[in-house]
Amino acid sequence: MTYCVAVKVDAGIVMLSDTRTNAGLDNISRFSKMFTFENPGERVICMMSAGNLSVTQGIMSKLRREIQKAEVEGIDVPTVLNVKTLYQVARLVGDEMQKMQERYREPVTTQGISADASVLIAGQRAGGKPRLFLVYSAGNFIEATRDTPFFQIGEHKYGKPILDRVITPSAAIEDVIKAVCVSMESTMRSNLSVGMPLDMAVIENDAIAFSHHRRIEADDLGFAQIARGWNQRLKAAFDELPKLETT
Amino acid sequence: MTYCVAVKVDAGIVMLSDTRTNAGLDNISRFSKMFTFENPGERVICMMSAGNLSVTQGIMSKLRREIQKAEVEGIDVPTVLNVKTLYQVARLVGDEMQKMQERYREPVTTQGISADASVLIAGQRAGGKPRLFLVYSAGNFIEATRDTPFFQIGEHKYGKPILDRVITPSAAIEDVIKAVCVSMESTMRSNLSVGMPLDMAVIENDAIAFSHHRRIEADDLGFAQIARGWNQRLKAAFDELPKLETT
Repeated sequence: MTYCVAVKVDAGIVMLSDTRTNAGLDNISRFSKMFTFENPGERVICMMSAGNLSVTQGIMSKLRREIQKAEVEGIDVPTVLNVKTLYQVARLVGDEMQKMQERYREPVTTQGISADASVLIAGQRAGGKPRLFLVYSAGNFIEATRDTPFFQIGEHKYGKPILDRVITPSAAIEDVIKAVCVSMESTMRSNLSVGMPLDMAVIENDAIAFSHHRRIEADDLGFAQIARGWNQRLKAAFDELPKLETT
Repeated sequence: MTYCVAVKVDAGIVMLSDTRTNAGLDNISRFSKMFTFENPGERVICMMSAGNLSVTQGIMSKLRREIQKAEVEGIDVPTVLNVKTLYQVARLVGDEMQKMQERYREPVTTQGISADASVLIAGQRAGGKPRLFLVYSAGNFIEATRDTPFFQIGEHKYGKPILDRVITPSAAIEDVIKAVCVSMESTMRSNLSVGMPLDMAVIENDAIAFSHHRRIEADDLGFAQIARGWNQRLKAAFDELPKLETT
């Protein structure tokens, strides 16, 4: 399983993913599900993937190969770093998703394995606004708006209630970082197939670079402090809650 | 969809269910998923069901018909009110589950509809201990222990994190009531197919009767107070949480 969450607020976009992959409970591995593409000052893009690993790795390999073709070999191909808009980046990813699904969906499904996959794309280009897209298995995609400021892929349910309660478009970036950490921690408590370490990336408005981009290891003190602090405060809040009047 | 939760602590058992049923999002109805069987002073039993409604209604009808046969018509049949132990009650329900699945599983599944169902059974008989069972579609069942003090059926994920954090075997009944209300409220916020009104039942140790058993309507002031109070306290707790050290 996987849990990736991306939150777009007025101040920017925060992305957090786990790194656990499993083909059955007895076959657990670690793969990063976060992929970044950067041309500082011109554009910054962060993608996260969930679902069939061969499909999502195939897409990311293809995106990187096209960049190499364009930048090293001088071939005129569209890439996530040279197309004009973030919308066109989402189109490119959707096209690669469709190609992977055309090639592998039938044989993979015949094996009783799901070929479904999804990709979150966040980014900003110079002259544009920060945008957040969710690409589905069919290659179609949707964009986050102020009404729906976050997207989740993979094991999304355990970590959704806290986001529903605290995320608003006007939230500060540091509060969004706290919120996605709490959301991830709740998910890891309930689903063993979501696990540390984590990858985090933050794109603040108009920076056109990552203001944070780092791995949060299992022994990260800051993350442990949030996890412990939240657990204590939640229990205290629960204790203070008046009992149900049952008359 | 459905959400039912049953928590067994040292002081007794608390059960809460929603009442929303849907055959597609455009076909929503209200059915109670809580069924009680009582012989005050001798035994008290509360069941909650999730899954295919025709299967679970069939089971409950059969259980009631057998009671009528035994009590009104004087026929010697095992019923949930006359078998010796709660374990045997779970066996009876499991047997009825198997019969319903044998009769309907294939034709129902052929229609592309799931025949899966599950039943939670809580109760106590005079001279016995309170027990909590979960009966699966195959008719097999498991029992809650101090290590796993709660069972959920239906849409269980949204409401699980709060239970994981606050339920311990030594929790007071009134705290368990608060916890299941918060768990239900979080679920209703995230899944429209879980909805008010709710049914609640409480079996306190050795009372051999329901200490509470009531419907919580959509305009219930006590429940609204818990929902609002929790939302406020959760936000306050979140605000107090230190930010993630990102250096």
